[in-house]
Amino acid sequence: MMQEAEIGLIGLAVMGQNLALNIDEKGFSIAVFNRTVSKVDAFMQQAGKDSHIIATHSLTTLIETLKPPRKLILMVKAGDAVDHLLEQLIPLLNENDIVMDGGNSLYTDTNRRTQWLAEKGIKYLGIGISGGEEGARHGPAIMPGGNKQAWLAVQAVLQTIAAQVEGKACCDWVGEGGAGHYVKMVHNGIEYGDMQLICEAYDFLRHGMQKEVSEIQALFSQWNTGVLDSYLMEISADILAVKDHDGTPLVDNILDSAGQKGTGKWTAIDAMEQGIPLTLISEAVCSRFISSLKAQRIHAQKVLPVVVERFNKDQSEYIQYLEDALYAAKIISYAQGYMLMQQASNSYQWQLNYAGIAQMWRGGCIIRSRFLDDIYQAYTDNPKLEHLLLAPFFVQAIEKAQKGWRKVVAMAAEIGIPVPALGSALSFYDSYRQLQLPANLLQAQRDYFGAHQYERIDKPRGEFFHTNWMEKGV
Amino acid sequence: MMQEAEIGLIGLAVMGQNLALNIDEKGFSIAVFNRTVSKVDAFMQQAGKDSHIIATHSLTTLIETLKPPRKLILMVKAGDAVDHLLEQLIPLLNENDIVMDGGNSLYTDTNRRTQWLAEKGIKYLGIGISGGEEGARHGPAIMPGGNKQAWLAVQAVLQTIAAQVEGKACCDWVGEGGAGHYVKMVHNGIEYGDMQLICEAYDFLRHGMQKEVSEIQALFSQWNTGVLDSYLMEISADILAVKDHDGTPLVDNILDSAGQKGTGKWTAIDAMEQGIPLTLISEAVCSRFISSLKAQRIHAQKVLPVVVERFNKDQSEYIQYLEDALYAAKIISYAQGYMLMQQASNSYQWQLNYAGIAQMWRGGCIIRSRFLDDIYQAYTDNPKLEHLLLAPFFVQAIEKAQKGWRKVVAMAAEIGIPVPALGSALSFYDSYRQLQLPANLLQAQRDYFGAHQYERIDKPRGEFFHTNWMEKGV
Repeated sequence: MMQEAEIGLIGLAVMGQNLALNIDEKGFSIAVFNRTVSKVDAFMQQAGKDSHIIATHSLTTLIETLKPPRKLILMVKAGDAVDHLLEQLIPLLNENDIVMDGGNSLYTDTNRRTQWLAEKGIKYLGIGISGGEEGARHGPAIMPGGNKQAWLAVQAVLQTIAAQVEGKACCDWVGEGGAGHYVKMVHNGIEYGDMQLICEAYDFLRHGMQKEVSEIQALFSQWNTGVLDSYLMEISADILAVKDHDGTPLVDNILDSAGQKGTGKWTAIDAMEQGIPLTLISEAVCSRFISSLKAQRIHAQKVLPVVVERFNKDQSEYIQYLEDALYAAKIISYAQGYMLMQQASNSYQWQLNYAGIAQMWRGGCIIRSRFLDDIYQAYTDNPKLEHLLLAPFFVQAIEKAQKGWRKVVAMAAEIGIPVPALGSALSFYDSYRQLQLPANLLQAQRDYFGAHQYERIDKPRGEFFHTNWMEKGV
Repeated sequence: MMQEAEIGLIGLAVMGQNLALNIDEKGFSIAVFNRTVSKVDAFMQQAGKDSHIIATHSLTTLIETLKPPRKLILMVKAGDAVDHLLEQLIPLLNENDIVMDGGNSLYTDTNRRTQWLAEKGIKYLGIGISGGEEGARHGPAIMPGGNKQAWLAVQAVLQTIAAQVEGKACCDWVGEGGAGHYVKMVHNGIEYGDMQLICEAYDFLRHGMQKEVSEIQALFSQWNTGVLDSYLMEISADILAVKDHDGTPLVDNILDSAGQKGTGKWTAIDAMEQGIPLTLISEAVCSRFISSLKAQRIHAQKVLPVVVERFNKDQSEYIQYLEDALYAAKIISYAQGYMLMQQASNSYQWQLNYAGIAQMWRGGCIIRSRFLDDIYQAYTDNPKLEHLLLAPFFVQAIEKAQKGWRKVVAMAAEIGIPVPALGSALSFYDSYRQLQLPANLLQAQRDYFGAHQYERIDKPRGEFFHTNWMEKGV
């Protein structure tokens, strides 16, 4: 077999197939392999039949087909499968060959693998890919991290196959080790939050304001032309337009029990470990947990008392409030996500490029939106921005949206519509902007029962005091 | 040295000292040791001077002082220190000796250590102890898990030194491996939640309703005679009564930046890993994170817009609402904690005794309260209770408290008081009691962009469907 292919790709599930077709279409020569070899042939007879893709039927052949230094993309299931594949690959590869993991690997695994392969002289990249099937096929967001020399060698390919926004690729260097997969993980967490927010708005309209699905469909289409313009809003409007066989909205017949693949959980857990209040995404993950308890909920619904008011306000006013609430909460969610990335960047010394991350997310991926242009601009204007909420653009945005946000959270409490994401975002805002939180009482409690000591507002930080509270401070 | 002491205790920090004094006072013969040996002498000259406690100045002497099979309690800092100490102890111990870890060890460490010591023939117990200094001195709650034979051998001692409620010890067998430390961890998570709830009420009164500290003090004292009767409410009232040197309330001069030792975080992370929506405790942990960002908050407070209404309703009405809100949210928090323990009990096959856990928490510990009597009763009446919220007593309690709970969460949103715990609890309730959540739209979104498939309400569970949404379902 001639060493003719520029890129090798292993793993022909939907994402792998579509990425291979994308690479081929953009003019790069690519060879593919899949462990279940019949899948290779099936792919070449169907989706790949008009392509120049080179089919191979063994790992050895695949490797022999590649021009040195070899460039391999793994599109296999995250977890042990990646390690097993790497063990098989290492004896077949030479020094300076490049292996890219395009799956949703946990960033700590990528940290470990980057080091492991470096010890063998092999350059490793964790490249987070977002965009679902369509993105993979026509241009995803790609978040590469790991060995920087490897990045320079594959940059041209990855930036060509990635989505493009205003002439810029949605793919740029993220940082060393697992940085690429980390940013992809946070992307997925934010995706959970965005989806939850849209669902809360839907619930408020459908069950709080008793709107028809068709009315909500029209509203989402309209919102998708304003500040909420985003892929997820667009597909939500599409979804609500789809009818079932009997003409009813298909969404009404779908079971309200959400699945998940774990990346939202990882983001929430990582935030806890890093000490970052990622409240909105955590609530979004928990909402999926609760939704999945369908059998319990059917029982609970019969037993638990419902003491709520009916929605009795001006409908058009609250529709505006709801748009404001979604927008404000979305700002909070991204601000929390950026807090987390800033903390991780410090912890791991990644020197993340915050504007670059927004640029990567502007196109191709599931969370792409007009909104990310504004984040991109905020970090371009001030790369040292302490907190996204403090960017002048978002200060103004929150000012304008704030009244509606409060009205919606208040109304939801009164009419019994759960708004964990909208509500936790508001509590975050009201805490973060607060000079005086009740943590003074909390510190006193800790000092009372555990002698944990406290600091004082009139003394320097780091000076600690203890009071004998039971003796009334004497 | 004669083998005269029944119990050995290592680690003479405050908790260790007080536990030793407690054991001595209850009539058990105890020998103590501390790595920094001068602490042993200092203890014997001060707090221990009127006791029968036997001081020892080396691990070897301590071990020689104990009657076989030896019974040792470790009161050292959780983490590596425990492993190092165990490595030193193993060569000194004989088969069937018993080692108890009374620190706040992570339950997975206790799982591992129980097995490790079992391989050496040594019986290990992880005994979670709560109650702070006072509890340790006069009767804490003790949550023992690990080797059941060891439990039977130390049961008499532990149940005697533990707090007693209505003639029953606040100490009973929890389960194998790390079960005792697990239940202690959940206890601590609940403690975070309880403290946060009291702080939110304080904030609502102080900054929302502009109450004086003395008025809040009187109110907390009064609440402490009703359904909110608890140790934490009691000490909060005590705290608010304490004046600084200049006569102002001391609480006003305490820095509002909360510390933590990590057990709340562990609980929140464990819940995420187990797929349990532990939203209230997670929000409580995050509130501590936000409070600790004091420097950022000082800056944010100058920049971020505040668009809020003033509290303009009937004060006495809202004081009643607030009591209702605290009570309802507290029920949610414990219900979530019990969900987590039920899940862990299944995951680890611990067969936790839920009434027994409430019994252990009724006295001695930081979260002790009248409220735990009702939980004890609920699980005594129905040991197979599916969910705490479904116990008839709590169904009624939530019915009664619900209106006020909604009013407070709504008002807090309007007047800008952060209520992450009260609010997330309400969203949890409104989700859990809901037959139809918007997760149907979420599943459609996942199917749209990722072909993740969905189930239908008119088809059996486990039957999955995919729609080609872009083609309008055709």
